[in-house]
Amino acid sequence: MASVFGGVEGGGTHSKAVVVSGDGKILAETQGPSTNHWLVGVDTCIETINDMVQRAKVEAGLDPNTPLCSLGMSLSGGEQKEAIDKLIAQMKERFPSLSQHYFITTDAIGAVATASNCGGIVLISGTGSNCKLVNPDSSQIGCGGWGHLMGDEGSAFWIAHLAVKTVFDAKDHLVPPPHDVNYVRKAMEEYFQVSDLMGMLPHLYRNFQKSHFAGFCKKLAEGAEAGDALCRYMFTRAGRVLGKHVVAVLPAAQAPLLTGDHGLPILCVGSVWKSWELLKPGFTEVLDDFASSGNFNGHFHGYSLLILQQSSALGGASLGAQSLGATLTMDYSANANVFYRHTFSSSQ
Amino acid sequence: MASVFGGVEGGGTHSKAVVVSGDGKILAETQGPSTNHWLVGVDTCIETINDMVQRAKVEAGLDPNTPLCSLGMSLSGGEQKEAIDKLIAQMKERFPSLSQHYFITTDAIGAVATASNCGGIVLISGTGSNCKLVNPDSSQIGCGGWGHLMGDEGSAFWIAHLAVKTVFDAKDHLVPPPHDVNYVRKAMEEYFQVSDLMGMLPHLYRNFQKSHFAGFCKKLAEGAEAGDALCRYMFTRAGRVLGKHVVAVLPAAQAPLLTGDHGLPILCVGSVWKSWELLKPGFTEVLDDFASSGNFNGHFHGYSLLILQQSSALGGASLGAQSLGATLTMDYSANANVFYRHTFSSSQ
Repeated sequence: MASVFGGVEGGGTHSKAVVVSGDGKILAETQGPSTNHWLVGVDTCIETINDMVQRAKVEAGLDPNTPLCSLGMSLSGGEQKEAIDKLIAQMKERFPSLSQHYFITTDAIGAVATASNCGGIVLISGTGSNCKLVNPDSSQIGCGGWGHLMGDEGSAFWIAHLAVKTVFDAKDHLVPPPHDVNYVRKAMEEYFQVSDLMGMLPHLYRNFQKSHFAGFCKKLAEGAEAGDALCRYMFTRAGRVLGKHVVAVLPAAQAPLLTGDHGLPILCVGSVWKSWELLKPGFTEVLDDFASSGNFNGHFHGYSLLILQQSSALGGASLGAQSLGATLTMDYSANANVFYRHTFSSSQ
Repeated sequence: MASVFGGVEGGGTHSKAVVVSGDGKILAETQGPSTNHWLVGVDTCIETINDMVQRAKVEAGLDPNTPLCSLGMSLSGGEQKEAIDKLIAQMKERFPSLSQHYFITTDAIGAVATASNCGGIVLISGTGSNCKLVNPDSSQIGCGGWGHLMGDEGSAFWIAHLAVKTVFDAKDHLVPPPHDVNYVRKAMEEYFQVSDLMGMLPHLYRNFQKSHFAGFCKKLAEGAEAGDALCRYMFTRAGRVLGKHVVAVLPAAQAPLLTGDHGLPILCVGSVWKSWELLKPGFTEVLDDFASSGNFNGHFHGYSLLILQQSSALGGASLGAQSLGATLTMDYSANANVFYRHTFSSSQ
């Protein structure tokens, strides 16, 4: 199995694994649950990864007892060096036939590596949220990605939390809601199977599951699409704060990122982007404001939003191979598509 | 032990227990750690309560194997009927010699019952926060008290979280801080023993302890007293949102609460009130604005802030006795002192 590489995309709710040949052909792809070690713990994280990758080997017709050349993992929660060193050490010890070499990076970096070898901004809004700017020279700057207690703005969890909090504050007369809360309150009672606010406490504390809580966002998207004003407001707010993440990292962008044919490339990752039309008013407003404020002397002339056509497990596999000095052949133009393009008017 | 009653004050960080004779004399008082069952779990909660009360019996020279007449508990987290029924059932089963009868109420109601039998507002700002208005006819309305994921505004946890979040947002360029963050960042690194923001993640997730996190508030109070502008800003914000809790429940106040000699009585419970001078600008501003907006046609003419001189375990004991049809003699005037009094100008 001299030239077979593995990759993992680890999310807060779902995960994927691929095994890839050196010419970039995906030999097999498997799925699994959350592998965010902050959420599920180290043991579950590495067991889930091992299970997905071993299944992928078998599906590809490979011997599961023969280690891969490398396993490159693009993990939500894969930021802190000490923590990822520990993950790798435990994988080596517990699963000696999984892979010869290991490489872990964040979900953001793995996503960029799937779409491009020239960098870009990746803006994640799934269970959690995160934003990273990767320059052509590989220098990076980030904003967010600190989890639900210190960030995650604009994520499914954040939108679900904002909606529930709005219901609590309205009931308490602490903050008047911007729109009628009835739809959101009923949707909350139905989704969480509770009859009052008190019933929400176990969902927030003893039985807290971030992924389940974040799943309420889907119901809010349905409400927004059906026209509920409060649901629409949540997504506009989310769009705005996601836009602010881009504005926060933009000053670090090197010129080639801004001067490409399609403007600044922003790779949008995560299920909340399925609701782009709902995010759009807030998101475009923040970027318009930034551009019109005269930043960069007008060098920020537009942007493109891209969506991956392949799992960022593929980018993980590519980075894992690179860390060994090997190269996976990547067809970047097939790996990501532009779904929105905006050029600021020339007066800006 | 026919006429001995017990009381418990259960907080998010510390707890107290008393045993009291029918004439209101405190025979013994003991202390223990958190008994908020949402934070420490049911087992630890009831074991801590049993331990404190049994120690109090021994200190009072009573036989620990003879049950109290009643044990009235005023607990942070003592709101949800289903949860408190479960607590009582488990206490009866595991500790048959603890007490004959049990009564659980919230920390807010136990505090009011310590200070008065005519009701009032109780405004808790300790590890968490909560506000309850208790009318002379015992009807109640609340605001807040939902824990750190859905409330706790103005609490030590909330102040500590706001400070840390301000440091994160400044570092990320996501939100510009209202004042220089250097003092707060250094205090944070020192208190949590971390060298960067990444080091904070275990404190927020894997090793999260609300009580320890909230303890950072004390360092911020020290910074505010030393003149740091950002620390002072946190407490002004806290004072403002605590004032908003009062404004939220005020419309439910029956006339006698507003027309007493000292104006509306607001019982302030929890360690954050030690920093009243720091909270004052925000708190008084919100109540002034409310009064001057002409609410109640000028019937809201002033308010007094009171602080307990006795543990609200005493109020818990009193309510526990009442639930049996018994009465504890209470000297309310000795149980609470006014520490601030405000009368709105007559033009309001």
